[in-house]
Amino acid sequence: MGPSHMGLEKILELTRQSASRFVTTTLPAAPVLARGTFGGTLVAQSLLASLYTVPTNFVPTSLHCYFISGGDPNNMIAYDVEDLRNGRNFIHKQITAYQGQRLIFSSTILFAKEKHDHDSLHFL
Amino acid sequence: MGPSHMGLEKILELTRQSASRFVTTTLPAAPVLARGTFGGTLVAQSLLASLYTVPTNFVPTSLHCYFISGGDPNNMIAYDVEDLRNGRNFIHKQITAYQGQRLIFSSTILFAKEKHDHDSLHFL
Repeated sequence: MGPSHMGLEKILELTRQSASRFVTTTLPAAPVLARGTFGGTLVAQSLLASLYTVPTNFVPTSLHCYFISGGDPNNMIAYDVEDLRNGRNFIHKQITAYQGQRLIFSSTILFAKEKHDHDSLHFL
Repeated sequence: MGPSHMGLEKILELTRQSASRFVTTTLPAAPVLARGTFGGTLVAQSLLASLYTVPTNFVPTSLHCYFISGGDPNNMIAYDVEDLRNGRNFIHKQITAYQGQRLIFSSTILFAKEKHDHDSLHFL
């Protein structure tokens, strides 16, 4: 795994507080000239948090998210991962991100069981 | 801007090849124990590429994406940004990511013009 990925995993790193709650370990920085947290960080961390809650043979197939309110780069973020549905072949997760009581972001992610033929959706 | 964000911007960095095409500058690494590129990188880079093509007073409101095929961590990625619609208050972008001829990921992002009252969606 290249050095760049060590950086990404370090930057996105989450600490597990409970079965379904994860919090950031570094402040969610804003890009140059921007006031709020970079949206890509929110999406990537919500995906990471949900990956901790599904079996390793399930891969994400689609993700949908809403950038609800600006992320404050001086505040940690808490991600809550909820089961919409937990089936044998498909798992639906809903992730909401909070800074204090403020809802800043929400995403829903559909995971599918990986099939080991060439048509597996995505080996993550 | 904290050190962590310098790392993220460096890792996600894209080079502009044309008005609508952007390519990665570092290889899209895979997370520990994984074979394919981390999905969060694809989403974040597609958002970054589209941000280069909209006025700075437009902010993302929703994003939808499909993880279509595993990203090869040993190959660069090209992101093509296409206009679905370019209005005065709303802009729709469609981004497709390729490794060679292989389509690996696609996202659609809705941007809204930022309003400078407390209810602006997201200051990025």
